[in-house]
Amino acid sequence: MRDSIFHFERRPNLSIQGQIREMLVAAILERQLPPGAPLPSSRRMAKTLGVSRNTVVLAYQSLVDDGFLQSRERSGFYVNPEILKGRAAEPPAKAPPAPDRRSPAALDWARRMRVVPTGQTNIEKPTDWPAYPYPFIYGQVDQSLFPIAQWRECSRQALGRRGMDAWTGDAVAADDPLLIEQIRTRLLPRRGIMARADEILVTMGAQNALYILAALLAPPDTRIAIEDPGYPDVRNIFRLKTTNILPVPVDAQGLPVDARLPAADLVFVTPSHQSPTTVTLPKDRRRALLERAGRDDFLIIEDDYEWETNYVAEPTPALKSMDTDGRVIYVGSLSKTLFPGLRLGYLVAPAPLIAEARALRRLMLRHAPNNNQRTAALFLSLGHHDSLVHRLNKAYRERWQAMGEALETHLPGWSRAPAFGGTSYWVTGPGRLDACQLAERALDDGVIIEPGQVMFAEPADGGPAPKNHFRLGFSSIATERIEPGVALLAQTIKRES
Amino acid sequence: MRDSIFHFERRPNLSIQGQIREMLVAAILERQLPPGAPLPSSRRMAKTLGVSRNTVVLAYQSLVDDGFLQSRERSGFYVNPEILKGRAAEPPAKAPPAPDRRSPAALDWARRMRVVPTGQTNIEKPTDWPAYPYPFIYGQVDQSLFPIAQWRECSRQALGRRGMDAWTGDAVAADDPLLIEQIRTRLLPRRGIMARADEILVTMGAQNALYILAALLAPPDTRIAIEDPGYPDVRNIFRLKTTNILPVPVDAQGLPVDARLPAADLVFVTPSHQSPTTVTLPKDRRRALLERAGRDDFLIIEDDYEWETNYVAEPTPALKSMDTDGRVIYVGSLSKTLFPGLRLGYLVAPAPLIAEARALRRLMLRHAPNNNQRTAALFLSLGHHDSLVHRLNKAYRERWQAMGEALETHLPGWSRAPAFGGTSYWVTGPGRLDACQLAERALDDGVIIEPGQVMFAEPADGGPAPKNHFRLGFSSIATERIEPGVALLAQTIKRES
Repeated sequence: MRDSIFHFERRPNLSIQGQIREMLVAAILERQLPPGAPLPSSRRMAKTLGVSRNTVVLAYQSLVDDGFLQSRERSGFYVNPEILKGRAAEPPAKAPPAPDRRSPAALDWARRMRVVPTGQTNIEKPTDWPAYPYPFIYGQVDQSLFPIAQWRECSRQALGRRGMDAWTGDAVAADDPLLIEQIRTRLLPRRGIMARADEILVTMGAQNALYILAALLAPPDTRIAIEDPGYPDVRNIFRLKTTNILPVPVDAQGLPVDARLPAADLVFVTPSHQSPTTVTLPKDRRRALLERAGRDDFLIIEDDYEWETNYVAEPTPALKSMDTDGRVIYVGSLSKTLFPGLRLGYLVAPAPLIAEARALRRLMLRHAPNNNQRTAALFLSLGHHDSLVHRLNKAYRERWQAMGEALETHLPGWSRAPAFGGTSYWVTGPGRLDACQLAERALDDGVIIEPGQVMFAEPADGGPAPKNHFRLGFSSIATERIEPGVALLAQTIKRES
Repeated sequence: MRDSIFHFERRPNLSIQGQIREMLVAAILERQLPPGAPLPSSRRMAKTLGVSRNTVVLAYQSLVDDGFLQSRERSGFYVNPEILKGRAAEPPAKAPPAPDRRSPAALDWARRMRVVPTGQTNIEKPTDWPAYPYPFIYGQVDQSLFPIAQWRECSRQALGRRGMDAWTGDAVAADDPLLIEQIRTRLLPRRGIMARADEILVTMGAQNALYILAALLAPPDTRIAIEDPGYPDVRNIFRLKTTNILPVPVDAQGLPVDARLPAADLVFVTPSHQSPTTVTLPKDRRRALLERAGRDDFLIIEDDYEWETNYVAEPTPALKSMDTDGRVIYVGSLSKTLFPGLRLGYLVAPAPLIAEARALRRLMLRHAPNNNQRTAALFLSLGHHDSLVHRLNKAYRERWQAMGEALETHLPGWSRAPAFGGTSYWVTGPGRLDACQLAERALDDGVIIEPGQVMFAEPADGGPAPKNHFRLGFSSIATERIEPGVALLAQTIKRES
């Protein structure tokens, strides 16, 4: 037999024994090692791969245990003919998938689509951002701050054999009661919110909460007022449901609550610090918004993202905490403190709405994966989340200060320090600045910035949205990199203008 | 200080040190231990809790490391005043949430709902099913068959520090390329399907795939033909989008493809074995369905659930494998071999459709949690999934046989053995049988069965759907329990009639 099929590259996070196993399983399932075929002796295989013989023996043995191999007395190991049973006739495994075998082009897919989400513009970020020296990127994780050991330990505990149905079973519409309890008693009180268990729904991140609300509350003619600039995903989600999207220009205090706020059925707002301009909605505007909601009978969707970060003033409680007649629907997220890849968020609203949201989520995806819900619940109950928030605040405050100074030095007058905190600065250049072009140039110098144009709704006059804004995130860049990065960016700007 | 606040019950899957930590964190965050307060000496605490002093010392130390406690030279441990900073003024933590503080009743929620999913009827199952001696329940996990050690090891490897961005980061619209590759090269070939990476989308279970398709492909007037009886969730999902749902009575060979199949834009079918009657769609009907799809220009949604189980004949390849012009949209799931709590499924379709589905999923929930995608990819690549399917088949075949015999003995002529395999029998009693009542009675004897009425669409004449069918699952009940359980059920039936 050709030894040439036995080789592997060393991979992180997988033992050599595991890689030998992976290699052999692939060879068996792809029929390079046909049913009944003998394997090289462990000695020879060890030599071929340049690993210890013992490692090979252990790999062989585990494959015998799992029915891939058979061990024959004084004769060695053979591929178990049984293992390939119960499969449909396979297409030749090695044959390249033929793009033109079927002709999708033949079908006019565009005509068949009820909605065409690919047509929407949205935030684009380089996926290989960690490779850049100056990643002023928003909403990603700083590995140096994340308590990976604690998370892994909680994950290990969550996957216990006892209470196994808790993480393996189909919970249909239910959430993990331990997680609900942690959200209810640990997270919401921090924001001044008191809620019952039947007023809380676990979602696949804040994004999923917003999608569920749009699906539930937005018939085709719904008028929804959104902040402009604002969170593009909200605009795009509601665009799938209604044509009545009313962008409201924000000012230095956030969403205006006066004649500038149009009549609407729903109002989307980010009071803690407006996304993306980071300004905090003052108390009087909050009161005015709640009064107006009661008078004009509309609902308010509060996206309380990044509530954890606050460096100067006492944190303002959530708008929801002032809500006495259940008009505020609260959306929270664990992506900013835990990690976005986990996809955990929550919805807080009156029980009748949560009941419908739960029934809809059941049809949409049933529930968030049980193992992750349980892991997060343990992480919260053991206080790891609180101490993480503590640590993040300390680190972010440093970076927030460093960036404020750097911007004052290199781009004076282009930005206002966010009063609340957050993890980014909103920067406004002169009218002639094209931040999209700037972003491309900056990337050549290893600097990642986020152009602001996509945060604006298309102006009614059909003209282009303003191009002279951009966002500088500091949640994923080391403090000492901030000043050099901003300096580099300022040079690029000078060079271009 | 009152020692009475220091106590805990032993819990599974959490170390004693962890439980001490949990108890102290709660006392600190709920201000039973106010900022600056001293803690009992480790000796005294150990005595109070009846644990070793060393365990207490370790718990105290970990809380010092995380900023909950301060350790003072020769004086002991104190609550760190810093830890409670950065919180909004909290409502009294101990006050009971007041249901009437806000009055949701004041708002007419029903009027505000675009859809009212709670109004739908769906399958109900006792959540405490493992507590019953005879759980003929469908779609849950048999813990005795699941390789928990291997899964935990893969999970551990997936949460590695190296390649950490792979599981912590926001992948926006992307899937884990390792998982896509495993689906493409390991799972789909087993069903005779060859696909490119851009023709595959990872979903939150098959349920999520179906919801995405409904949102994409079903404008309000869409005509969708579904099997009757059939999978209720599909009926309910599409009901949210269109009123044109056309139930097609299935016969002894599954979905009829002749005059009985009405003109439609979409046809939903479960060819491998029809849900819930378990019959396999014959080759000639498959060919006829594909020909008709081309002639009448409709799309086919194939739900290939439980393809892994097959006990007698050679497995029939997926309908998708016969599809030459991309009209078949394939929905697969890992819930039946891995576990439903994981929520992983996949969609296979022409690239233009997958592109829209991906953009829509991005708005709906972004992506399935990275850690679970990576864990599943490792589990597949190491061959654990193949050997699990192997093991499941062996066990299920036994149970399938045992149940077939038990039914022949105790309820002769009430059911036909599923030719394909699957994990359940579809049982039909005499017309006067009310399976809903029977299910309640049986539950008193510790027997769980699933009434079949919910699987039927409401008849057009407004009359009740047939009550005399029920489903007996055997994926979660030990072989030796099957005969006694069926015997008990037969007695109950005799007693009632």
